[in-house]
Amino acid sequence: MSAKQYNIAIAGATGAVGEEMISILEQRNFPVKELTLLASRRSVGKCLPYKGEPIKVSELTADSFDGIDIALFSAGSDRSREFAPIAAESGTVVIDNSSAYRMDAHVPLIIPEINPEAISDYNKKNIIANPNCTTAVTIMGLKPIYDISKITRVVATSFQAVSGAGAQAIEELKAQTSAIVNSKEIKSEVFPHQIAYNVIPHIDSFTENGYTKEEMKLHNETRKILDDDQIQLSATTVRVPVFRSHCISVNLETEDQVSIEQAREAFASFPGLSVLDNPDKSEYPMPITTSGMDDCLIGRIRKDFTVKNGISFWISGDQLRKGAALNAVQIAELLIKHKTNNNA
Amino acid sequence: MSAKQYNIAIAGATGAVGEEMISILEQRNFPVKELTLLASRRSVGKCLPYKGEPIKVSELTADSFDGIDIALFSAGSDRSREFAPIAAESGTVVIDNSSAYRMDAHVPLIIPEINPEAISDYNKKNIIANPNCTTAVTIMGLKPIYDISKITRVVATSFQAVSGAGAQAIEELKAQTSAIVNSKEIKSEVFPHQIAYNVIPHIDSFTENGYTKEEMKLHNETRKILDDDQIQLSATTVRVPVFRSHCISVNLETEDQVSIEQAREAFASFPGLSVLDNPDKSEYPMPITTSGMDDCLIGRIRKDFTVKNGISFWISGDQLRKGAALNAVQIAELLIKHKTNNNA
Repeated sequence: MSAKQYNIAIAGATGAVGEEMISILEQRNFPVKELTLLASRRSVGKCLPYKGEPIKVSELTADSFDGIDIALFSAGSDRSREFAPIAAESGTVVIDNSSAYRMDAHVPLIIPEINPEAISDYNKKNIIANPNCTTAVTIMGLKPIYDISKITRVVATSFQAVSGAGAQAIEELKAQTSAIVNSKEIKSEVFPHQIAYNVIPHIDSFTENGYTKEEMKLHNETRKILDDDQIQLSATTVRVPVFRSHCISVNLETEDQVSIEQAREAFASFPGLSVLDNPDKSEYPMPITTSGMDDCLIGRIRKDFTVKNGISFWISGDQLRKGAALNAVQIAELLIKHKTNNNA
Repeated sequence: MSAKQYNIAIAGATGAVGEEMISILEQRNFPVKELTLLASRRSVGKCLPYKGEPIKVSELTADSFDGIDIALFSAGSDRSREFAPIAAESGTVVIDNSSAYRMDAHVPLIIPEINPEAISDYNKKNIIANPNCTTAVTIMGLKPIYDISKITRVVATSFQAVSGAGAQAIEELKAQTSAIVNSKEIKSEVFPHQIAYNVIPHIDSFTENGYTKEEMKLHNETRKILDDDQIQLSATTVRVPVFRSHCISVNLETEDQVSIEQAREAFASFPGLSVLDNPDKSEYPMPITTSGMDDCLIGRIRKDFTVKNGISFWISGDQLRKGAALNAVQIAELLIKHKTNNNA
């Protein structure tokens, strides 16, 4: 086994996903030689702990990537578009959590349990894209079925936690709750409306067809990850007053018949997915169950009786972990394995 | 115009829906001769205001209905099964908000804007059923389309407010929020799990096919109200930490093509429904918008591009009003009109 270690940078280290990346590198004992934390100027000087040692945050600039083997980006699309090509040019492999490169034909979009083979294209641009958080959780439930039969159509409605909108969004939900309890004025800065004790059917901006970008990401990214431009996915994405973990209500139709028993078996044996489906005991996935978990949980599995080959389920996953930081680190692990195998 | 007035009783007057019924009778200036408030023994002696006067709550017994013309029931299915037939036998017309009689072939299930003609069957049993709250709000969005073309299939996912589970549920959400903010222990008595900062994909009990009773109500009641046993409706019903107003994400398929323009027009001209659909201004229905409103609001109206004749929308309605108390009072108004016309 190679004892090789890697210089890793995290761009956007002080964000909700960035902090999660640090702790996941530590938890998974990733072979880090040196860890560089990068953020915007206003975070410079901050320290974040890694393996018990404080690491100073440096400013993200064009010169940040000298000697960096792998850079995990989670600093927003604009920063990715500005700095990822510079890093990639200098030989760093960028694993990008933003939407900037996901649909780029020369950038693989990877969920290691689903399409690990796509890693072989990593050096077309030296950029690998991490999927949208809701796509990542949803597709963990689609793939086990897809391995049995093609899926023709999916209807998905999401219940998305505020932390998907960053650390400030968590503070906004807390502050609004406290304001309502104390009959004070509510401020909405991160979200377009009050999120406390409310739900908002609007995530990312609207597109011309009436769907939001978030909703179209589910359609487009699912097609790319499954490498299937026939699958149709209609999504409605909704923000709910939950701190952490997304849930998705899914109705799907398959080309061939898939029995509920087959589906259950396929879900149970799929890596990164666990079945929690005991209605008699009121056991099913919820945000409070999956917060902080690596695995996605799937439940409410049932035959959709309204269509010939239909299955309905409910899936929940920690969108900061499987939906973002964990998947990015898993991609980095896949990359290392791929490079090691190819050098061997 | 007849100046006739009616003796009205409310069974379950101290519940969330019961209190709403009192205020709606007042707001709509319902021709009340005398208002009798009925509840279980532990509420006896309580006073509730009607038109500025306190009315004492009496115990709901078999003798409660002497001289009562119309009784609005919202005291749970068991009470309805026990007392509605007694009241009906004595000549009172019962408008029942519970699920006890909704699927009874001799009991009309009515939304006055949708199937007012069903009122003519009221005297088969002297019982009229009020639909489930989520059914009522959902079908307000289905009917305008249904008037243009048959709907073949509906996929619906609900976001249901805690007050749908009664007044104690409101207190539970408040208490849990406060416990979490103050790092104290959380108690769940009304709901099977913590509801604060969580979502629970479980409303009412589970049936053998994996759907809950709440989910099957949407399917069965929609068929009965539309008088169409071909329409297929697959629902996932979910409790969210919202005090008031349900929202439903709906994807439907029609037999004939219905353009988005036709759909919008049909929605806009339907009584009891208003369109709020300005994505550019971040305007769409939300629980905080529809709380306390009579009309249901519909938005996020778009062509569902994943199927031949598909439309998606998002609808929100105050489940204590259109989903319960308002619809019950509207049925009472319809009944009076029907009786007046038939006597005329």
